[in-house]
Amino acid sequence: MSAIKLCVIGTGLIGGSLALALKQKKYCAEIIGAGRSEATLKKAVELGVVDHYETSPENAVADADIVVVAVPLGAMHAVFKSISTALKPGAIVTDAGSAKQSVIMDAAKSLASHFANFVPGHPIAGTEQSGVAAAFAELYQQRRVILTPTDKTSTDAVNAVTAMWQTAGAEVECMSAEHHDLVLAGTSHLPHLLAFGLVDCLNNLDDVDEVFRFAAGGFRDFTRIASSDPVMWRDICLSNKDAVMDMMRRYRDQMDDMYKSMEAGDGEALKQVFERAKKARDDFCG
Amino acid sequence: MSAIKLCVIGTGLIGGSLALALKQKKYCAEIIGAGRSEATLKKAVELGVVDHYETSPENAVADADIVVVAVPLGAMHAVFKSISTALKPGAIVTDAGSAKQSVIMDAAKSLASHFANFVPGHPIAGTEQSGVAAAFAELYQQRRVILTPTDKTSTDAVNAVTAMWQTAGAEVECMSAEHHDLVLAGTSHLPHLLAFGLVDCLNNLDDVDEVFRFAAGGFRDFTRIASSDPVMWRDICLSNKDAVMDMMRRYRDQMDDMYKSMEAGDGEALKQVFERAKKARDDFCG
Repeated sequence: MSAIKLCVIGTGLIGGSLALALKQKKYCAEIIGAGRSEATLKKAVELGVVDHYETSPENAVADADIVVVAVPLGAMHAVFKSISTALKPGAIVTDAGSAKQSVIMDAAKSLASHFANFVPGHPIAGTEQSGVAAAFAELYQQRRVILTPTDKTSTDAVNAVTAMWQTAGAEVECMSAEHHDLVLAGTSHLPHLLAFGLVDCLNNLDDVDEVFRFAAGGFRDFTRIASSDPVMWRDICLSNKDAVMDMMRRYRDQMDDMYKSMEAGDGEALKQVFERAKKARDDFCG
Repeated sequence: MSAIKLCVIGTGLIGGSLALALKQKKYCAEIIGAGRSEATLKKAVELGVVDHYETSPENAVADADIVVVAVPLGAMHAVFKSISTALKPGAIVTDAGSAKQSVIMDAAKSLASHFANFVPGHPIAGTEQSGVAAAFAELYQQRRVILTPTDKTSTDAVNAVTAMWQTAGAEVECMSAEHHDLVLAGTSHLPHLLAFGLVDCLNNLDDVDEVFRFAAGGFRDFTRIASSDPVMWRDICLSNKDAVMDMMRRYRDQMDDMYKSMEAGDGEALKQVFERAKKARDDFCG
């Protein structure tokens, strides 16, 4: 049993699943949970996700060697601010936010002398579910975690956070925060906007019930991500605003081209788009 | 054992699965397959999908009581034309095309005196797979089949086709072809265009391999339909051009509004869209 004391702030699907995985692997001696809702924290103890909890983040981090901040992006700044003077010297802080440049700005402003021990991170995992009851130890098995250290980030801290995620079953890679934000805007943030937008668009048609009644399996898969948490996704989109708007403009150009092909009855142009897309999708999803 | 002789033209996923289901239920005495590719037809016999085959549709339909035309939309017209003088009196013809107004126009032009016995149909079922090897008897279990009879269509023919699909496990409903085409443009044709378009758009970014490497489960679900058959979907989109373009315009307006909310940093407007979409999606998918 290691002597590491871990603090997880935000014991939802992401933080809770990490705690469960690390507990299973005996990665740490103790896991302290913290968060806004005492009901959630009590449930986290009941479910064996954390050993005990503190409702104040300051108290929760006091003895911690590693602090994982797994709260919505909109709450990052306030959490960093509240823990910055309570962290013990050398404590490592990492996060699990889906946009990285905004979190780094928040941390740079608030973590003061601890900023060198802050390792920005993003586990590429999750489901459309949320909350501690949805947490499970296997969530990170063979999933990727991206770390985006800055030029001020300590190498030892990066190594420690890498080891933590590897223990939970993940593959860890480093890249720049800027590159991360563009890649995720394309593969995650834009698709969520498109799915939310499609369901809302169809919802505005007459005879709504009927429209959805004739939806087949393909539509259910396509719109699954539209069941994701609205507040979380509002925060993600706004936290990664520039990259998301860049991807939205590229996508609008793509769809405008396809509309013109439809208008002209240009089946060959449409077929070429569909063929390229099918090939790319088949290649990357095996 | 019924004395019905069934002819299935096009023994792919849709026609082949119907044949398998009807065989299992002993709906007919004999199933004759027809299609363009003799290799496919041989395979259909090997897999027990049809009892025997004819490479010419004219010969295949000569003794048939019911003819199911399950070919791509672009091939409907030619098939109707080739069988119109070979059908026996009173033979019922139905199809499985994903757009109905265009098929009705094709049938009206080509089926001559048999048009009153033509029942336009569309099973809302399928996977991103295609071909006879993907066919399975359970495909239509609890799936909906929409029939879009015209004012010239014989009620007896509608009843016979309804009974056939019910035997295969499906729930059958009637509506106008125009309404069908709008509903399916929204729940099926537009989503396919959006998914093909997204994958092609990302495919045009630099560092493509890397982009897809960081795609999570949500992206895989969202883009599953982009693995569908390009030629089939080109035909569907162009066959239902007006309704699909109508839906594309509505969707563009929706996304333009969301872009403006992003630009203005209007989190409340985004959250409202996301909340409405989540509620609608959760309601209809249970």
